[in-house]
Amino acid sequence: MSALKNDRFIRALLRQPVDATPVWMMRQAGRYLPEYRATRAKAGDFLSLCKNTELATEVTLQPLQRFPLDAAILFSDILTIPDAMGLGLYFAEGEGPKFQRPISSQTDIENLSVDVLSDLRYVMDAVTMIRQALDGAVPLIGFTGSPWTLATYMVEGGSTREFKKIKRLLYANPTAMHLLLDKLAIVVTNYLNAQIDAGAQAVQIFDTWGGVLSHASYLEFSLDYIQKIIAGLKVNRPDGTVVPVIAFTKGGAPWLEAISQCGCHAVGLDWTVDLGIAKAKVGSQVALQGNMDPNILLAPISVIEEEVKRLLASYGQHDADSGHVFNLGHGITPDVEPEHAAAFIEAVKQFSPYYHQ
Amino acid sequence: MSALKNDRFIRALLRQPVDATPVWMMRQAGRYLPEYRATRAKAGDFLSLCKNTELATEVTLQPLQRFPLDAAILFSDILTIPDAMGLGLYFAEGEGPKFQRPISSQTDIENLSVDVLSDLRYVMDAVTMIRQALDGAVPLIGFTGSPWTLATYMVEGGSTREFKKIKRLLYANPTAMHLLLDKLAIVVTNYLNAQIDAGAQAVQIFDTWGGVLSHASYLEFSLDYIQKIIAGLKVNRPDGTVVPVIAFTKGGAPWLEAISQCGCHAVGLDWTVDLGIAKAKVGSQVALQGNMDPNILLAPISVIEEEVKRLLASYGQHDADSGHVFNLGHGITPDVEPEHAAAFIEAVKQFSPYYHQ
Repeated sequence: MSALKNDRFIRALLRQPVDATPVWMMRQAGRYLPEYRATRAKAGDFLSLCKNTELATEVTLQPLQRFPLDAAILFSDILTIPDAMGLGLYFAEGEGPKFQRPISSQTDIENLSVDVLSDLRYVMDAVTMIRQALDGAVPLIGFTGSPWTLATYMVEGGSTREFKKIKRLLYANPTAMHLLLDKLAIVVTNYLNAQIDAGAQAVQIFDTWGGVLSHASYLEFSLDYIQKIIAGLKVNRPDGTVVPVIAFTKGGAPWLEAISQCGCHAVGLDWTVDLGIAKAKVGSQVALQGNMDPNILLAPISVIEEEVKRLLASYGQHDADSGHVFNLGHGITPDVEPEHAAAFIEAVKQFSPYYHQ
Repeated sequence: MSALKNDRFIRALLRQPVDATPVWMMRQAGRYLPEYRATRAKAGDFLSLCKNTELATEVTLQPLQRFPLDAAILFSDILTIPDAMGLGLYFAEGEGPKFQRPISSQTDIENLSVDVLSDLRYVMDAVTMIRQALDGAVPLIGFTGSPWTLATYMVEGGSTREFKKIKRLLYANPTAMHLLLDKLAIVVTNYLNAQIDAGAQAVQIFDTWGGVLSHASYLEFSLDYIQKIIAGLKVNRPDGTVVPVIAFTKGGAPWLEAISQCGCHAVGLDWTVDLGIAKAKVGSQVALQGNMDPNILLAPISVIEEEVKRLLASYGQHDADSGHVFNLGHGITPDVEPEHAAAFIEAVKQFSPYYHQ
């Protein structure tokens, strides 16, 4: 495959000097883009879009055709894994993801197969096709949900605000909880290694729901598994390149120091964390990714520009240890005008070089 | 009114020595108690219960008749204030609170009256009646929502997961946002002072939604107003007693140091924060309140006891600077068995004296 023409994103994750702060957006291939909505309508439902290699490639590339982004991210969903494990993923209109066969007993956990990579072949096919289509323009990010985050959906049967079932399992039967997380860690490790083999040049672990745990439970039931996964990744490639790993726990602010020691190259931050404070705490051990509140994209363009300037100043001048990838603190929402996303990316391009002199 | 027979709660908030860690539960007068459900059925709806002095007194006292709690908390709702400001609070079945006339423009904000204390008389009447009924058994806590938290409901028109309208207002029209918060800070200050005059012996400011803000926005749009309110409270009473103030921001972990400097006597913690780490950071400036995950009350009683022991050990031995009030990290939920709440409180009583020797 082609060598990278723009390696700013990879270099920043590895804390190597760059000319400007690289930028991408979580959920950048998404419903805020009319061309995405058109492709999705062609595919039928969301899951069919994920499983159609050509169309998944098409939507992955759409934001790059509009904006000078420094990375592409595989179009897929974190719930491909439980789907492959036999839980029967479907999307009920207006209700988010659901499972036909959620986990409701220790026996269900014991019966789960970890040998599911062949059922995820469509994801690797998409990775390979996207790499070919990108032709080295920018790096491609692969991703997964964290074991804890996947487990919340598998036990709750879908989205939840309260996490009652999973917390009851965690507190009342930690052995079963650990068995489920152990199995998921095996699957996730294999899944990310397969994405890397297929061409992913960086990987992100989305721990969307780690932030609902207590400090002690977070370390035991979420971070520990993220650490195990990273230890099992083949990040040093035969061609001498390194595949950087980004660990993103939404609501992870209380545990920044611990997260920075999990073996990741970069820590993803939500917007509750001050970038300058995070840099002072862990910025010489890991790169940081983030962290503008996505809701700022609903404000006038002048406000977006001011916020980008404020965040760049908060991270401050780059030095031999530093690395920052600009991003939102969570996914871009469907109600954002594409022109506002463009202004955000443009502002990073315009105002960040000053901090890399 | 009677002198306090049990002042453990007040003393711990003021970081004075106590024989055991005091304990109460947020939402302790609530739906998990069958006697509460019976009284509420008598009252009709939730709001009628809040506005009925006798029945509000009755439900405030119910948990104290069951459990050896160290404090009572006024039965009321944080949304009494916007209701008194004319927004028309109602509770739609299964949907939570709603407003008939939410704020939808700068003109709406300009037209809001801050002279609403007479419409909140029923709250002060309840405070006085509860104090008389308690007869000094334990202190009575008064409370309010923070200006930011109240504003989220007033602008969104009810509960929200996304905070789109309020964040659009904050980012696009910060002047109007500040005007609304200024008005709310005036009302809240008067409201808490009236509760104190009526007999509240401690007050808690619930900043339920501060945690959805960025670091900079939290300081500017939430904490700054909490600080202004506390500065305006008449906490030094003519009889020489002090009314301690507890500031509780759910999701406030990233900003512990700043919160500890807002003028409060105690910082309320949710369960994401390690008590020992919080104590090391701010425990010599303020008392700490919290912070067991309420979902632990769904686990077997042996698990509840172990978690209480773990949290007590995490706070550790008490010394001249320390102060800890045991509580949950958020309100007790309706699906908890009262026997589990009893076991929680009993465990604090049984295992905490060791740390106060």
